[in-house]
Amino acid sequence: MAVYTEVSDEELAQFIAPYGLGNLLSCKGIAEGVENTNYLIHTTAGAFILTIYEKRVEPKDLPFFLGLMEHLSARGVTCPLPVRDRDGRVLNELAGRHAALVTFLEGMWPRRPKVEHCLELGKALAQMHTAGENFSLRRDNALGLPGWRPLFDKFSERAAEISPELEHLIETELAFLDSSWPSNLPQGVIHADLFPDNVFFIGDKLSGLIDFYFACNDALAYDIAVCLNAWCFEANFQFNATKGRALLKGYDSVRRLSAPEQKALPVLARGAAMRFLLTRSYDWLNTPKTALVARKDPIDYVRRLRFHQAVVSIGDYGFEPAR
Amino acid sequence: MAVYTEVSDEELAQFIAPYGLGNLLSCKGIAEGVENTNYLIHTTAGAFILTIYEKRVEPKDLPFFLGLMEHLSARGVTCPLPVRDRDGRVLNELAGRHAALVTFLEGMWPRRPKVEHCLELGKALAQMHTAGENFSLRRDNALGLPGWRPLFDKFSERAAEISPELEHLIETELAFLDSSWPSNLPQGVIHADLFPDNVFFIGDKLSGLIDFYFACNDALAYDIAVCLNAWCFEANFQFNATKGRALLKGYDSVRRLSAPEQKALPVLARGAAMRFLLTRSYDWLNTPKTALVARKDPIDYVRRLRFHQAVVSIGDYGFEPAR
Repeated sequence: MAVYTEVSDEELAQFIAPYGLGNLLSCKGIAEGVENTNYLIHTTAGAFILTIYEKRVEPKDLPFFLGLMEHLSARGVTCPLPVRDRDGRVLNELAGRHAALVTFLEGMWPRRPKVEHCLELGKALAQMHTAGENFSLRRDNALGLPGWRPLFDKFSERAAEISPELEHLIETELAFLDSSWPSNLPQGVIHADLFPDNVFFIGDKLSGLIDFYFACNDALAYDIAVCLNAWCFEANFQFNATKGRALLKGYDSVRRLSAPEQKALPVLARGAAMRFLLTRSYDWLNTPKTALVARKDPIDYVRRLRFHQAVVSIGDYGFEPAR
Repeated sequence: MAVYTEVSDEELAQFIAPYGLGNLLSCKGIAEGVENTNYLIHTTAGAFILTIYEKRVEPKDLPFFLGLMEHLSARGVTCPLPVRDRDGRVLNELAGRHAALVTFLEGMWPRRPKVEHCLELGKALAQMHTAGENFSLRRDNALGLPGWRPLFDKFSERAAEISPELEHLIETELAFLDSSWPSNLPQGVIHADLFPDNVFFIGDKLSGLIDFYFACNDALAYDIAVCLNAWCFEANFQFNATKGRALLKGYDSVRRLSAPEQKALPVLARGAAMRFLLTRSYDWLNTPKTALVARKDPIDYVRRLRFHQAVVSIGDYGFEPAR
C-alpha cells in the first residue's frame, strides 16, 4: 500500500483537462500496488485510474506497457485502456513524473482463489496470449533466465541472513535451470506477474486483468508456470491439483498446449519459483523493516520450488490431456 | 495515509449484502484519514465509503457521529449519509471491528485554499450549525478546555524535546485560557476539526463536509476559531485577513455572529491553537518516527498562537460587522 507522490487539486485539474473527460469530481489515493502511485478518479465521464510512475519503472518501457493494454483491449481482453488526450498522447507528466490515465476496471481480486477462479484465470490467460499476437513492440524479460544469475550475484553473500541453506539451493538450482531450460517453445507477449491481486472478479465471473508492468516477450507457457505458483498452492504450501487441473484445462480449452509445452512445464514452474525467490530475497535484504511496503517472506518460494523439484510430469499438476 | 484493517472479498460480500445495494463491483483501500480505515466501494447502486473504526474511536461515541450525519443530511447539509441495512442498523461489524457504510461524496479538498473557498466554508459552517439545532444526542468536547490540562500533564515533562520554551508557553497560556474562557456563548453541535481536507469542492463550489469523528457540543463560535486557524494562515504562518474576512462574512451571512461571540473570537482562536498544539505535541512525542502516518510539526501552532496573542479584536481577523 503506498501513495508515493502527492498531487494537489490544482495540478490534477490541469493534468486532466486535455483528456476531455468532463468535470473532475474526486480523486482518492489508493492503497494498492507497490511500484507506482495510483489514484482512483471520478469525472462526469466515469471512473479512471491515474498512475504516476515511480523510480522502479523504466521510462523507456512505458510505451510497451501502455501500447500493450491498448492492443489487448482492442482485441477483447478486459484490461485497463489508456486514455488518449486531445493530442493523442497516452503518456504525460504530473508532479515531475511520468503519468498515465487508464479506464477503471470494476472487480475484486480473490483473497482465497477457488477452483472456479483458476478455471476462469486459465481461459483469460490463453485469451490474452492469443490477443497478444502481432503486437508490434517488443520487450525482453528482464527477470527471465538470463537475469537470474546477475540478480543472485547482488545478494548471494548475504543469502545466509535469510536461511543457511539458501545460497547452495539457489546455486544448484540455477545450474540445473541453465542446462535444462527449453528453447523451442512458442513465444509471445506474457503478463509475467498474474497473481490473484491482478485478476478481478465480479461474483465468480472474471472481470479483468490489470498491472501489465512486468509484461514482456517470453515463452507463453512460462506465464502458466507463474500462475501455477501464484494460484494453486494452499496457505500451507501444499499444491492443490484440483486448482492446477482447472487452470490448465481452462487454458487448454482456449489455446491448445503443445506437446513441448506440456513436457516443459515442470522446468518452467521451477524457473518461475526461482524468479520470485530471487526478487523476494533481494527485496527482503534491501527493504528497511520499517518501510511502507510489507516485506514478503522469500522462504515461501523455497517451499514451492521443492514441490516442483519433485514433479515428474505435467500430470502432477493435475493436467489430463483432452486427446 | 493508512489502511489498518485488511478485508477479504468474501468478508466484504457478506458484510454488504444486508444493505441491499445491488452487486458489489469493487473495493479500494484509500490513503486518507489517520484514525480509521476507509474503503471506497462501488456497487450497482453507486459509490460508498466503508469505514472500519480503529482503536482511537470510542465505540460509545459512534451512535452520536452516525446519528449526527443522518440528522444533518436530512436538513440539507451535504455530508456522508450512513446507509441503513435491512434491519435499520447503521453500525455493524467487520473483521472484528465496528464498521459503517456511508454514501460517497464527490469533491476534492483544496490544497491551497483561496478566498472564495473561505467564503463558501463560512456559509457551510453556519448552515451546519443551524441544521444541528435539535439534534437529540449529546457529546462533550473531550478536546475542549477541561481536557487540555490533563492532556498537557501527559507530556509536559518531555515538552522540551520539542522546544525549550514550549513548557512555559503552554503553562502560561493554559492559565490565561482558564481565566478568560467565555461561558456565555451560544452552544450547539460543532464539527471541531473542519480542516481543508474535510471540505470538498467541485470547481469553486463546496460539495460537502466529511469526517464528523470529532463532532461534539460546544460553543458554536469555537468552530469558527478552529477554521480561522486551519484555513487563513499562509504557508509562512502569516494570517491572511482577506481570507479571514471571507470566512467570517460567509458565516455571518447565514447565521449572525452575536456581540459576545464577536468579542470572544480572539480568545477562542487562542484556545483552538492550543488544542492542536497539544494534540500535535502529544502525537509528536508518542508516534514512532517510522510510523505509517506522517507526524505534523507542533511548532506550526506555536506560530499561530503567537499571532492570536497579539490580536486585539475580531477586526484583526478581517471582520467588518455588517451593521
